[in-house]
Amino acid sequence: MTSFARNQWYVAAYGAEIGRELFGRTVCGEPILLWRTEAGEVTAMAGRCVHRRFPLSEKPSRLDGDRVVCGYHGFTYGADGVCVSVPGQQRVPRTARLASYAVKEQDSFVWVWIGDREAADESRIPRAPWLNSPAYTVVCGMEPLAARYGLLVDNLLDLSHETYLHGGYIGTPEVAETPIATEVDEGAGIVRVSRHMDDAACPPFYSESTGIDGRISRRQDIEYHAPCLYLLHSRIAPTGTPGPDADGTDPHAFHVEVVYAITPETENTTHDFWAVARDFALDDQKVSDFLAENNRTVVLQDVVALDTLEQVIAREPEGTQELSINIDTGGLAARRILARLLAESAATPAAQPTR
Amino acid sequence: MTSFARNQWYVAAYGAEIGRELFGRTVCGEPILLWRTEAGEVTAMAGRCVHRRFPLSEKPSRLDGDRVVCGYHGFTYGADGVCVSVPGQQRVPRTARLASYAVKEQDSFVWVWIGDREAADESRIPRAPWLNSPAYTVVCGMEPLAARYGLLVDNLLDLSHETYLHGGYIGTPEVAETPIATEVDEGAGIVRVSRHMDDAACPPFYSESTGIDGRISRRQDIEYHAPCLYLLHSRIAPTGTPGPDADGTDPHAFHVEVVYAITPETENTTHDFWAVARDFALDDQKVSDFLAENNRTVVLQDVVALDTLEQVIAREPEGTQELSINIDTGGLAARRILARLLAESAATPAAQPTR
Amino acid sequence: MTSFARNQWYVAAYGAEIGRELFGRTVCGEPILLWRTEAGEVTAMAGRCVHRRFPLSEKPSRLDGDRVVCGYHGFTYGADGVCVSVPGQQRVPRTARLASYAVKEQDSFVWVWIGDREAADESRIPRAPWLNSPAYTVVCGMEPLAARYGLLVDNLLDLSHETYLHGGYIGTPEVAETPIATEVDEGAGIVRVSRHMDDAACPPFYSESTGIDGRISRRQDIEYHAPCLYLLHSRIAPTGTPGPDADGTDPHAFHVEVVYAITPETENTTHDFWAVARDFALDDQKVSDFLAENNRTVVLQDVVALDTLEQVIAREPEGTQELSINIDTGGLAARRILARLLAESAATPAAQPTR
Repeated sequence: MTSFARNQWYVAAYGAEIGRELFGRTVCGEPILLWRTEAGEVTAMAGRCVHRRFPLSEKPSRLDGDRVVCGYHGFTYGADGVCVSVPGQQRVPRTARLASYAVKEQDSFVWVWIGDREAADESRIPRAPWLNSPAYTVVCGMEPLAARYGLLVDNLLDLSHETYLHGGYIGTPEVAETPIATEVDEGAGIVRVSRHMDDAACPPFYSESTGIDGRISRRQDIEYHAPCLYLLHSRIAPTGTPGPDADGTDPHAFHVEVVYAITPETENTTHDFWAVARDFALDDQKVSDFLAENNRTVVLQDVVALDTLEQVIAREPEGTQELSINIDTGGLAARRILARLLAESAATPAAQPTR
Repeated sequence: MTSFARNQWYVAAYGAEIGRELFGRTVCGEPILLWRTEAGEVTAMAGRCVHRRFPLSEKPSRLDGDRVVCGYHGFTYGADGVCVSVPGQQRVPRTARLASYAVKEQDSFVWVWIGDREAADESRIPRAPWLNSPAYTVVCGMEPLAARYGLLVDNLLDLSHETYLHGGYIGTPEVAETPIATEVDEGAGIVRVSRHMDDAACPPFYSESTGIDGRISRRQDIEYHAPCLYLLHSRIAPTGTPGPDADGTDPHAFHVEVVYAITPETENTTHDFWAVARDFALDDQKVSDFLAENNRTVVLQDVVALDTLEQVIAREPEGTQELSINIDTGGLAARRILARLLAESAATPAAQPTR
Repeated sequence: MTSFARNQWYVAAYGAEIGRELFGRTVCGEPILLWRTEAGEVTAMAGRCVHRRFPLSEKPSRLDGDRVVCGYHGFTYGADGVCVSVPGQQRVPRTARLASYAVKEQDSFVWVWIGDREAADESRIPRAPWLNSPAYTVVCGMEPLAARYGLLVDNLLDLSHETYLHGGYIGTPEVAETPIATEVDEGAGIVRVSRHMDDAACPPFYSESTGIDGRISRRQDIEYHAPCLYLLHSRIAPTGTPGPDADGTDPHAFHVEVVYAITPETENTTHDFWAVARDFALDDQKVSDFLAENNRTVVLQDVVALDTLEQVIAREPEGTQELSINIDTGGLAARRILARLLAESAATPAAQPTR
């Protein structure tokens, strides 16, 4: 039994990572082989040869047109995972096929469905349209985390840590001081956490990218779509600036959409995809470079802290207690939803990969 | 269940290690945060924030006057471990407090009581007054050992290994050849092992520090106070020198007090504190440098051997047999006492840290 | 319970590795101390001191004439493993002795018997006479493998992988394409796999060493003597060359005897001894250098692949299925024989080492 909810969509990669080279990534403990066909479609299949379990993403395994050739004994598979050739004999066993995954390229991500393939429903994939919109400029990256994914969910749902862990980057005293409002849609598996600061110091992340040099109105509106997608709608404007117009547009403020995809790799490691989309200074490479460098620094501060926490937790007796307060309302709701998704997927026996 | 006796005093640090920076050290599996108040008192408290278990000794956690600020979300604690501030709300939960440890600075060491705090009795801390006496000059250090602490107890209670493992430093053939006398005070938990050599070669450790260039009378009188403190009273004099005077003074000989504090860190790692105090050449920095360098070399020879032994034992089937002989009398007595202390502390349910 | 068959001969070392220095090697999980007496005989005994388990192959343990002196407390053993001296007392305990191993130096290897010493029968050691014959020139080596030994048995019994993993060295398309013939002598524990290619490309390994520059007749005749010795009789000749003469001699072809000794070190590590003996260009150092370098490269390609596979298997749920085809007939037979040998040795209670 893993501790990951199955029958869910997870981000396996950025689309830009997948090309005409075999690419391996483990999602929820499942090793997946990803590559792009000659027609440009992303394919995802089980990452181990059916013969002797050799990793198909490891050299000398290779792509030959739209076929994958295992680097150990040459078992050869089509884009659908079906084996088309084996060494030393003409007959290919009927059962020689790799499980293939439902896959969807959207909003710059490659989403894969972990679970029973028949249940895959692309309409359930949450959206992050800013990552693929001409109205926004995006910087992004992915950092490997040597910590269980729940620690990153906790981290992102409680931004009061910005004041302490990310002071001098994105944190100011007002973040930790300002109370939050939390809304939970248990059925849809969405947690919303908002913190609105009307008169706050402007941290370097925003002052240097927007050019604001006084105090700001700063809004953080989090939407977490369990299990994988985290959106932070960040609105920044000089203190006293009017709010959005009646028609919903908001020309007076700077908007930054911070997106994380939180993908479990194994029980104790996580893929930490991060992206920062902005609606200003669209063509300013200096701003892009600054935000990329600065956000990566912030993510790495989290990585160091969470990797440390993982070691702490791994060494503590099971059942060591935590003390939670108001700031944890969102994180606790996320844990509850994740536990429910896990229980639901555990109740559904996993379909055996076709092999 | 750990294999460490609780309700005992252990050395956590040298006093000189603890200042106005947060300092973390694990003792008997318990992560402890140590720091010195503005008034100069050493304090010891549980090393993990009650909120999300972040290590309070890790940056960006910091000391703010006599308060500890957690580097993750800013939970703030006083010197008594009580939480005085949390982010995002005025009310601090009553149960938000770190367990604090009984602590005593004495003989240059910081002793902490591991166990039920009410039972802490400072008068039971064994003494090593030479480490803090104007009549002695001291060199000292601490080496981390990747081996269970029982291996270091075995090692130090059977000095016949000096001849083989430390030949050319402190060992000569006479050490291994000369029989020992062992006395055990089971009730007090003290083991005494004595080896008196009337006419022995003088190893470099003593010839270079004392200036003796012939054969020597060499006495090794060990006192091990289970579980943590090991004293080796070493008396060196040219062969034929008279013994101590009737009044107990001993002006004819050189005296070296070798002190070890043997502190379990985890089941398989140990803090190996060592100190060498001498009553001669008190102001001679060359002698100090020589003894510090030489003794550290000897300690590191033990570290290499014991780290190797730990690996050997970890790989062997449980219950692999040893063969013991006379030289092991002291070590076996120590094991018996440690087993009794462990059984006694296991019979007393551990008080839950106040939290 | 280990997964190694006991009551079997295993290669512990090349004879050339064993001299007048203490040498430690673990075979089937047993740490063995090997050294050569002043008279030139190889001896093998348990590698841990009976006193406190110190590894006798680790410094400062040392050889003193034909005695082994433990580097920790000086326990001293003769070539028969019997302890002859201990520190601090004249009497040596009767039970103080190291288990000694039956050992046989043959065909350049040092064979040790793992199991009940009384059952050791030197006549059962399989032969590899080419390694010690004036009619052959030999290059050899040993690579440590971080993989269970069964993976190397699988690898060597199915040479179709040469085409993929060793393309450009020893593999050509014909190897994977040509069907094999397999013969199994279950009683003797021998598996024979043959692949005869009448008209094949000549891989660099053979073209550069023999000077042949066209197509070849290539025969691969494997003999695997479970559990440890693997022989590959390789016959190379230009296509169309006559076969062996009626008298069994074969002057028309080049012969290469490739020998592997597959020795389990621990459950997940293996000693991969490899040797290449040739009956041509006997005195040509360039050919020797080429074959040594080239074969080592091929062995390291296997090492990388099998170390990877070990990690794959270690992470997969137990019972993950493989799919086998005709090329696996030899490997599956070998697994069957190894399982039988293991079951037989498990049924015989292991004699306790005399100690």
